[in-house]
Amino acid sequence: MKHFAELSQIGLNHTTGGIDRQLGSIGDKNARIWLKRIWKNEMHLNIYIDPIANLWGSYSRHLENKPIVFGSHHDSVADGGKYDGAMGVIIAMEVIQTIKENHIIMRHPLEIVSFTGEEPNSYLVSTLGSKVLCGRLNKDDIFKLSDKNTGQLLSKTIDLLGGNSQKIDSARLDKKLMTAFLEFHIEQGRCLFNQQQSVAAVTCITGIYREIITVIGEANHAGTTHLENRKDALCAAAQLCLDIENIMNECSHLAITVGKLKVKPGAASVIPGRVILTIDMRTVYPAEKEKALVLLQKIVTKISQVRGVRIERKINLDQLEMPMDSNVINAMADAFVKNEQPVIKMVSMAGHDAANMARLTKAGMLFAQSVDGYSHCPREYTAPKDIVIAAQVYLDTLLILDKELE
Amino acid sequence: MKHFAELSQIGLNHTTGGIDRQLGSIGDKNARIWLKRIWKNEMHLNIYIDPIANLWGSYSRHLENKPIVFGSHHDSVADGGKYDGAMGVIIAMEVIQTIKENHIIMRHPLEIVSFTGEEPNSYLVSTLGSKVLCGRLNKDDIFKLSDKNTGQLLSKTIDLLGGNSQKIDSARLDKKLMTAFLEFHIEQGRCLFNQQQSVAAVTCITGIYREIITVIGEANHAGTTHLENRKDALCAAAQLCLDIENIMNECSHLAITVGKLKVKPGAASVIPGRVILTIDMRTVYPAEKEKALVLLQKIVTKISQVRGVRIERKINLDQLEMPMDSNVINAMADAFVKNEQPVIKMVSMAGHDAANMARLTKAGMLFAQSVDGYSHCPREYTAPKDIVIAAQVYLDTLLILDKELE
Repeated sequence: MKHFAELSQIGLNHTTGGIDRQLGSIGDKNARIWLKRIWKNEMHLNIYIDPIANLWGSYSRHLENKPIVFGSHHDSVADGGKYDGAMGVIIAMEVIQTIKENHIIMRHPLEIVSFTGEEPNSYLVSTLGSKVLCGRLNKDDIFKLSDKNTGQLLSKTIDLLGGNSQKIDSARLDKKLMTAFLEFHIEQGRCLFNQQQSVAAVTCITGIYREIITVIGEANHAGTTHLENRKDALCAAAQLCLDIENIMNECSHLAITVGKLKVKPGAASVIPGRVILTIDMRTVYPAEKEKALVLLQKIVTKISQVRGVRIERKINLDQLEMPMDSNVINAMADAFVKNEQPVIKMVSMAGHDAANMARLTKAGMLFAQSVDGYSHCPREYTAPKDIVIAAQVYLDTLLILDKELE
Repeated sequence: MKHFAELSQIGLNHTTGGIDRQLGSIGDKNARIWLKRIWKNEMHLNIYIDPIANLWGSYSRHLENKPIVFGSHHDSVADGGKYDGAMGVIIAMEVIQTIKENHIIMRHPLEIVSFTGEEPNSYLVSTLGSKVLCGRLNKDDIFKLSDKNTGQLLSKTIDLLGGNSQKIDSARLDKKLMTAFLEFHIEQGRCLFNQQQSVAAVTCITGIYREIITVIGEANHAGTTHLENRKDALCAAAQLCLDIENIMNECSHLAITVGKLKVKPGAASVIPGRVILTIDMRTVYPAEKEKALVLLQKIVTKISQVRGVRIERKINLDQLEMPMDSNVINAMADAFVKNEQPVIKMVSMAGHDAANMARLTKAGMLFAQSVDGYSHCPREYTAPKDIVIAAQVYLDTLLILDKELE
């Protein structure tokens, strides 16, 4: 908790109480300096910064077995919470400290990691560090990206964070290099809060599917254009938003959201001619996704016909759901029992680095309760009691996996 | 038509065929240079630029009676049409030329005017020149305004256009200085086009009422927030847009439009927490406006309750309808009859400089057919045949008023 309190000062927005540690920000840089100092001076880990600037700290690397890797990320969204990511790094640190202090002999080396750029950011790429590790992004992809506000190249930002953009492709990891990957994270939803429980094992990380939809009507004069002659792109988009929201009534295991919407030309006296919006659709069930896409097509066709607008759809992201490893889930369930916690399993409706790490090794995630389900905002909170339980379960899961896995 | 063809080259966007002569732009400046050259060298008018940079050209100023003033504006919206404003200046020029060439003796001096900044622009003020003339804006107001994109002060722009920002208050005109004001303008709607008629007399210029509405929901994670826990500000705003559009079914003599809408935080993976939108409401009937405002309040209350969002309303503009002068309307009707045109009277649902000039003198407007009702876009078109009829009616109206008015 002392370490957490220190890290929570870095990037702290004193007005809102939120955290500003977006990729490449001063908060990001200072968090890295702090982590390296603690890892080196207090924990005596061997520190390595890979070409995409992920921070690695290894404990007992000399052992022959392949390491168990665990950690999370230290970056945040703008004005985000103190717990998201950061607590996953802090708990991993605490677990290593406990193993050291208790002189526990491990069969596997341990590697702690704090990933680069997990959160959505101004370079429009999330889970950046783990995407490079598992080969979903390569050097050419990275060199195409730049900050949408300042224009700074992502490659430059990576270099400023201690990475080596020229060697990004060498950051890609082979599938045989790790024994397992474990990530602790706050739930960012209300499931555990509603049940008043502390922890859950994640069974699957949601698929994320995104479209950019353009509604093309006809810009015209707000005064002189009669209702029957209007092709108002915003009214058509408004109908679209409501019908899309209603898909969640038909598909109860799916989340769908219009988070961005832009109106053109965007003048008080002009009927909107064009609206561009994003759809974000998440589910762990492919059948739900297919059902929702059929409904979406019906909605789009109907609105186009009724309102005489053209609606263009473009898939922007189609990231499949990623099941967590059964060995890890079972070890976590055993650790729950040992710690007198009910065995709760749930899916993650947020994306995580663990989904990328699952492409490389046996991956698993542990969730702790988020009070009121708040996340990505200053009100994000997880009670110390639940953090303690989570840390104990995490340690026990690691000890079980250390015994069971080759 | 030769003059019109020349003016139509100034600010021409060769890609779209539209006109870029926004307030302070190169197109605006070049149009002023062209107007001054023609007025001075070809028409031998006395040119005067007032402190707000309205261009004035006087013909036979030495006469004792107060002048009849007529004209329109040469500025345009971005990528606007060739006719809006410009044709009102060109027809006024043609009328003076015809009076000169035919040696018609007038009882009143004539003043042609091309107003500064009639169109909506990046300084967020429209009918700028005429607002200053009638005292709706003073020097202090002007000095508070700046370009929302570049930050340049409006006062500097005015000075660059040949005005004198320090003396803006002296541009204000006394009520007794003019005999009448006449403006020709394209209709910018479909009424005359649907009737296949050429011209109409304007009886009243619409009132314009605007609100800025803020919908405050709760920003939250697009994946982990279940439907029942969402307070999606965009879905609430979408319902608002549709219900507002529906007000036009209840109030058939009223136009209402949501032209601007901004979503915050505006990220694909975040449920919108806040939406800010504008409502533009126009009618010449105060009772319709009152009825619409009652409906709007009901809509806002219902959506707030059903969706658990807060909706804040702020009046941004409340410009009353402005009737045109009956002497001018009657003179125009006589001119229609003389030119074998049906006497068509209509209201203007767009704002015009004439609404400000009506505060100073007997004001009237003549509309000509807009093909397909297009305006503020490259497709804006008025047939030469209708322009010729309008110019003849305009001249005859002027001659009638010259005889009838003191």
